[in-house]
Amino acid sequence: MIRKKRKAGFDGPSPEEYAEGVLEGNRVMLSKAITLIESNAPQHFDAAQSLIQKITPERKPSLRIGITGVPGAGKSTFIDAFGSLLCDKGHKVAILAVDPSSQVSKGSILGDKTRMERMARNPRGFVRPSPSSGVLGGVNRKTRETILLCEAAGYDIILVETVGVGQGEFMVRGMVDFFLLLVLTGAGDELQTMKKGIMELPDLVVVNKADGENVAQAKKAMQEYNTILHFLKPYTEGWTTEAVTASALKEQGISEIWGIIEKFKEITLGSGGFEERRMEQQKDWFYESIKEQLMFRFFNSKGIKEKIRAFEEDLKKEKVAVAANVQSLLDEFFSKN
Amino acid sequence: MIRKKRKAGFDGPSPEEYAEGVLEGNRVMLSKAITLIESNAPQHFDAAQSLIQKITPERKPSLRIGITGVPGAGKSTFIDAFGSLLCDKGHKVAILAVDPSSQVSKGSILGDKTRMERMARNPRGFVRPSPSSGVLGGVNRKTRETILLCEAAGYDIILVETVGVGQGEFMVRGMVDFFLLLVLTGAGDELQTMKKGIMELPDLVVVNKADGENVAQAKKAMQEYNTILHFLKPYTEGWTTEAVTASALKEQGISEIWGIIEKFKEITLGSGGFEERRMEQQKDWFYESIKEQLMFRFFNSKGIKEKIRAFEEDLKKEKVAVAANVQSLLDEFFSKN
Repeated sequence: MIRKKRKAGFDGPSPEEYAEGVLEGNRVMLSKAITLIESNAPQHFDAAQSLIQKITPERKPSLRIGITGVPGAGKSTFIDAFGSLLCDKGHKVAILAVDPSSQVSKGSILGDKTRMERMARNPRGFVRPSPSSGVLGGVNRKTRETILLCEAAGYDIILVETVGVGQGEFMVRGMVDFFLLLVLTGAGDELQTMKKGIMELPDLVVVNKADGENVAQAKKAMQEYNTILHFLKPYTEGWTTEAVTASALKEQGISEIWGIIEKFKEITLGSGGFEERRMEQQKDWFYESIKEQLMFRFFNSKGIKEKIRAFEEDLKKEKVAVAANVQSLLDEFFSKN
Repeated sequence: MIRKKRKAGFDGPSPEEYAEGVLEGNRVMLSKAITLIESNAPQHFDAAQSLIQKITPERKPSLRIGITGVPGAGKSTFIDAFGSLLCDKGHKVAILAVDPSSQVSKGSILGDKTRMERMARNPRGFVRPSPSSGVLGGVNRKTRETILLCEAAGYDIILVETVGVGQGEFMVRGMVDFFLLLVLTGAGDELQTMKKGIMELPDLVVVNKADGENVAQAKKAMQEYNTILHFLKPYTEGWTTEAVTASALKEQGISEIWGIIEKFKEITLGSGGFEERRMEQQKDWFYESIKEQLMFRFFNSKGIKEKIRAFEEDLKKEKVAVAANVQSLLDEFFSKN
């Protein structure tokens, strides 16, 4: 699907120029390329897709790690410390944030860079804030394509952080190899406030802030989480999700966490589970995209919106037959499209 | 949406005759009406929808209870005992089975009636096996519409049982007021074999077979389940999901379970949560149906199937850009439809 080098209304570098810059590891070109991917302007979509198509065959091995946490768990401090450790070990680390609840561009680069001071300055690091959602696949598509761009630019570890409330955890789980949940002390209270199903997503639970007077409480929380995890089915077959303690602030337990992730990678690469998950994720993403697009076209088609609003009112009264209404809505939609 | 009394190719009673029979509580007409709803023949769809439209305004108060269980938990025995108790208390009880994994008609009426001997003979009971899935909304639509028919026929308690493997639990949870999970002893082992998320669905967990030498073990399992439930977020706001023991065989603990459900009904009716859930379910079902129908039309449209198969192969190699492919598939679909 090679397209013309330049399209009307698109006056930045060409997809070829972007691809070349990204593959050379040029940070400015990478940033600009991500901005192109994130653009909601329809005329940028073709150029962005052409760019993705060009860099896709150049894929390099990478590890994608999702990181989420309860409010106040110290996610930024953890990611800053963890990312710095990985850079020290010779990795190139990209940090992406995902905020599906953001309808307009919220997070600023400055904001994210202030949150993660060391990583923002690290020449082996790349920090990128959350994209705003848009029509063509929204945050989900943009984040997945940004991961590919970062990998093409030579970042071999991608940290994908969930920001804000919403279903971000499930979205991120669907695009990473390993998923880490940061918690605090007091499993019982904390779990009551978590969204349903969150505890079944992680490959590792980290009780953070295990420092100073908090150590004993953190150890207790770790035991509580291990009790719960014992009853739950691990997300990854052949791997037992466990809880450990750490202190991002004091940089304690961070290299142990990396050790666990390396072990996970070794086991899943050996069993084939690693590649299998990536393939499944690609497939899910393909079908998910089709669903999203179909729904988008349907609900934004002429006349449907008003009809839906009226049906919703009737539905509340349980006075209408759902299937017949759905049928007539679809008939109308397809007669016009 | 009143349609002509008889349509070509449809030679049973008219929708009016069906509606009249069902509303009179005529069991033969109810059975036939359900068969009409379950028919996969497109010419039956309009008649069925006309029937649903006719009975919908006549809705009577009811309680819909979903029942699921781990293999061997004694679901049939439990439902037979529980249903009989409710009949004795003056209720009219319909028992429906849902098996989303069944692609052809599997469960036979005889089979289900043998499984639940007392309820099959009970004049206040109505036992109906699982419908086979079909194109127009499948098992989900058929079960929802069968619930409406049973309620129109005067059954004030609907027990919806999940049968077979698959995502039946989530489907049934989305159509009932109260959800009950039957388990056995040994929470740890059992939970490992359950599907992800199941433990967050029920409003009550019943450790069955708490009789004879098994009593002590059942009590221990009850405590284990209560520990886990303490950490999980209850499915119903304002209600604490608990674990209790029972013996369906010895008919012990069954009326206590009914007491818990009555309390649940009282609380949720008082808080408005009962009506709110029903409205939410209607709305979810409406949107779910639209999604199902759109996906069905898309994946069954000419030329798309072959393209999808080819793309899937490419996707496995992670060599193609997902968004661009989705875009071109949709463009093709809409240019033809």
